[in-house]
Amino acid sequence: MHILVTNDDGVNAPGLLSLAQEMRCLGQVTVLAPDRNWSASGHVKTMHRPLRVHEVELTDGIRAFSSDGAPSDCVALALLGLLPEKVDLVVSGINPNANIGHDVTYSGTVTAAMEAVISGVPGIAVSLNSPENHSGSLEYGPAARVARRIAQTVIERGLPPGILLNVNVPYLPDDQIRGLCVTRQGLRLYRDSLVARADPRGRPYYWIGGEAPSGVPEPGTDFGALADGWVSITPLHLDLTDYRSRDEIHAWEWA
Amino acid sequence: MHILVTNDDGVNAPGLLSLAQEMRCLGQVTVLAPDRNWSASGHVKTMHRPLRVHEVELTDGIRAFSSDGAPSDCVALALLGLLPEKVDLVVSGINPNANIGHDVTYSGTVTAAMEAVISGVPGIAVSLNSPENHSGSLEYGPAARVARRIAQTVIERGLPPGILLNVNVPYLPDDQIRGLCVTRQGLRLYRDSLVARADPRGRPYYWIGGEAPSGVPEPGTDFGALADGWVSITPLHLDLTDYRSRDEIHAWEWA
Repeated sequence: MHILVTNDDGVNAPGLLSLAQEMRCLGQVTVLAPDRNWSASGHVKTMHRPLRVHEVELTDGIRAFSSDGAPSDCVALALLGLLPEKVDLVVSGINPNANIGHDVTYSGTVTAAMEAVISGVPGIAVSLNSPENHSGSLEYGPAARVARRIAQTVIERGLPPGILLNVNVPYLPDDQIRGLCVTRQGLRLYRDSLVARADPRGRPYYWIGGEAPSGVPEPGTDFGALADGWVSITPLHLDLTDYRSRDEIHAWEWA
Repeated sequence: MHILVTNDDGVNAPGLLSLAQEMRCLGQVTVLAPDRNWSASGHVKTMHRPLRVHEVELTDGIRAFSSDGAPSDCVALALLGLLPEKVDLVVSGINPNANIGHDVTYSGTVTAAMEAVISGVPGIAVSLNSPENHSGSLEYGPAARVARRIAQTVIERGLPPGILLNVNVPYLPDDQIRGLCVTRQGLRLYRDSLVARADPRGRPYYWIGGEAPSGVPEPGTDFGALADGWVSITPLHLDLTDYRSRDEIHAWEWA
């Protein structure tokens, strides 16, 4: 069992280290992660420039590399043959913030797992629902242990083809996490606003700011599970067709 | 009717100009597009740095701006208030290559339309299925006229909430396009391979290369429609939950 661990926060992020250490209990681990932060970078395939890969020192005995590509590029590099051994499972994270609702297409953590699934390898994205405005270092241990349980089950069962698991873990101690709950993607409410300012030379610049997004904690959704102290496991696929509106739109008279 | 036109190939791409000119027949047009090529850049929200916007000269009387953000950033800027007038419709393209199958999460053209829909504005992505290895300039006229027909219908009917249209047009003269066909997302077969070389200093670099992706031209899919000379209109939504596997995964005994 050869597990590739990646993330979108960069190879030196503490969430990645916690995840890699837990995955070592399940098999051989290789880390290949970006050399910088790629948050909200989306699903990238870098074809217009070459990518560099460097071996890095992570911790005791975990083979680790960094790349100047995006998280999905790291997965592509590994699965296209950069690593001599076949990869059996890709686990991405642990992202310090939840990836729920519409976050999933923006998220480097989730799109890394998408890239695995497109190449026929099971993928799991793991994020921690840490509180807004948390200061100081985060405790990744409980989420890493949850990730290990889920990865172990996926290794035993396999995933249906084309499916990745988007896992979000409440920020709670182990004994206060109520359990695992299979959910659907909920509704994110973004509260972005545009900050327009003038630079020191008087020229305008714009910054996408605003409050942190909220969500509707409806039962059965990722938001609902987290709000009640459950781990949310959402099976995602990459067929974005809206089958419900297809027939309606088909019946339209086109201009 | 105020229509925002954007793309992922950059503000000076010929496909954008053809699209903007046709959209002018339907209302007021503003162009806000990246100042460079962002192909395969995915769904990006740039929050770690400010964005710049410059007015550019495009053609007779179309108001146009470029930004150093991604296609989805251009849409966010416009909808968050950079433009004084409310935007009623976002049309993205015309991409010179098809965006079908799994392309949709990578595609800057499609993720720009996703960004519109997340903000509650109808979005249409338009791509041209130009032949592989086409040399010389492409003829965007037929695809731009198709985009106008579809946009006009969307203006009259509206789109169901949360739905964008992913439009792919065969590379044919107007009178050889058979018509419009509402499709589902088909299956892309990527044929990427990794090219490993040494740079002039002997250090390795890696380039994601390989043959152009193919697809399965199954009836009812985007691939199938294009193969038969039809315009493919795929309604996409952003709920990636795989409802089919949810119950099965829910029934698993977790480790």
